[in-house]
Amino acid sequence: MKDLPLFYAPQLREEQQLPEAEALHAIKALRTSIGDELLVTDGQGMLYETIVTAVDRRHCFVSITREQIWNKYWSGRWSVAIAPTKSVDRIEWMIEKMVEVGVDEIILLRTKHSERKHINQERLERIVQSAMKQSQKALLPALRTDINFADLLSEAKQPIRLIAHCREGMSPERVTIDRAFSPKQDILIAIGPEGDFTIEELEEAIRTGFVPVTLGESRLRTETAGLIALQWLHTLHMLSLHNTTENSK
Amino acid sequence: MKDLPLFYAPQLREEQQLPEAEALHAIKALRTSIGDELLVTDGQGMLYETIVTAVDRRHCFVSITREQIWNKYWSGRWSVAIAPTKSVDRIEWMIEKMVEVGVDEIILLRTKHSERKHINQERLERIVQSAMKQSQKALLPALRTDINFADLLSEAKQPIRLIAHCREGMSPERVTIDRAFSPKQDILIAIGPEGDFTIEELEEAIRTGFVPVTLGESRLRTETAGLIALQWLHTLHMLSLHNTTENSK
Repeated sequence: MKDLPLFYAPQLREEQQLPEAEALHAIKALRTSIGDELLVTDGQGMLYETIVTAVDRRHCFVSITREQIWNKYWSGRWSVAIAPTKSVDRIEWMIEKMVEVGVDEIILLRTKHSERKHINQERLERIVQSAMKQSQKALLPALRTDINFADLLSEAKQPIRLIAHCREGMSPERVTIDRAFSPKQDILIAIGPEGDFTIEELEEAIRTGFVPVTLGESRLRTETAGLIALQWLHTLHMLSLHNTTENSK
Repeated sequence: MKDLPLFYAPQLREEQQLPEAEALHAIKALRTSIGDELLVTDGQGMLYETIVTAVDRRHCFVSITREQIWNKYWSGRWSVAIAPTKSVDRIEWMIEKMVEVGVDEIILLRTKHSERKHINQERLERIVQSAMKQSQKALLPALRTDINFADLLSEAKQPIRLIAHCREGMSPERVTIDRAFSPKQDILIAIGPEGDFTIEELEEAIRTGFVPVTLGESRLRTETAGLIALQWLHTLHMLSLHNTTENSK
């Protein structure tokens, strides 16, 4: 696919035009006109090269010239569940970075120690979309907010379920993520809030099959921990590809 | 060491008191008074448990009750050299996160494509200090700003020198960091600016012994790439500890 600015149009096939906000951006900020080429994704895995067929003040019609399935460069479906931080900026930053690095689902948790802040879901969804476009991906990560920790535990069906915490001396001992990782599997990793999960929350998670993990010896802020946990998965996935290649030689 | 708020006093042994800014924070924000315990670091690897012996409006005198060498949890000296982004916020964010995750030196580069922004060194140093304290470390990372890329190439002496870039088709091909990593070595990793290193810059780096690396398939923003590169080192270091343990069994 050509290296062009990426637009998000979930209904591109049906509507053959950009949604209004994207159209306005194309027309006003990029001064798009008839005959220009645009790269468009439906956020469901497809990339389209298109050519602009008509524009007016609020519409930008396009015709698809080429299409391609986007190569999701990790396998399995990866979800990160995390309690929002006190500072909204830090949640927003974290969401942007997770989408850049690559994630399938971000779940904002309510835990015993999490902040009961109002979450502006619409604003966070715009951040997800914008980071997807900026990092040239064609799969829009799911964003779920305000999920109770107990509900997460009862509904989670991923074969690999991890819970990162900082409490010393709990049993079983925490392992590093590589000890629990397996490539091509669906993975859920839960990250504690400022003040961490409570002992009861951890015990309940472990009872339902979560593996307690550590991200290393540094004391990370919540939002940093979320991103670093996700990057562990990506690094381990890439290392597993090497091993596969080498074993097949 | 006790779990107390950490203060930074580079001359603690000589002066037996906190520097003024730290003293003001202790007195005004935390309402510290005589007999209180404070954790203090000199930023050079020492942690001190102290007890407050005297306070007035601008001074906070302490007496050391216990000292301990901080356990730096990675080996070798790790430097990240990176061109500042257009947005100052993003540089600041990146510096905070690198210090949290663990780094020895951050070098802000001038490259062909980097932004010629004025850098407020003092403000960035305060961010480094604050992130060191917040993440309970006792080694203040060095921060060097405004270093020419050519000077970096000629002065760099680390046995492992890596350069991350996104240009396709250059020779030699980029490898993932694990292919070039070795535990306990000093490592320098250079990250390109928005717009990347030029072909000439890359060729010159490779000529002087830098190994071209890739951070994976995602298109990362500069500041994200810096943090992710550093986290690769930490993950590989932790995995190498496992291998050492297993081989010695």
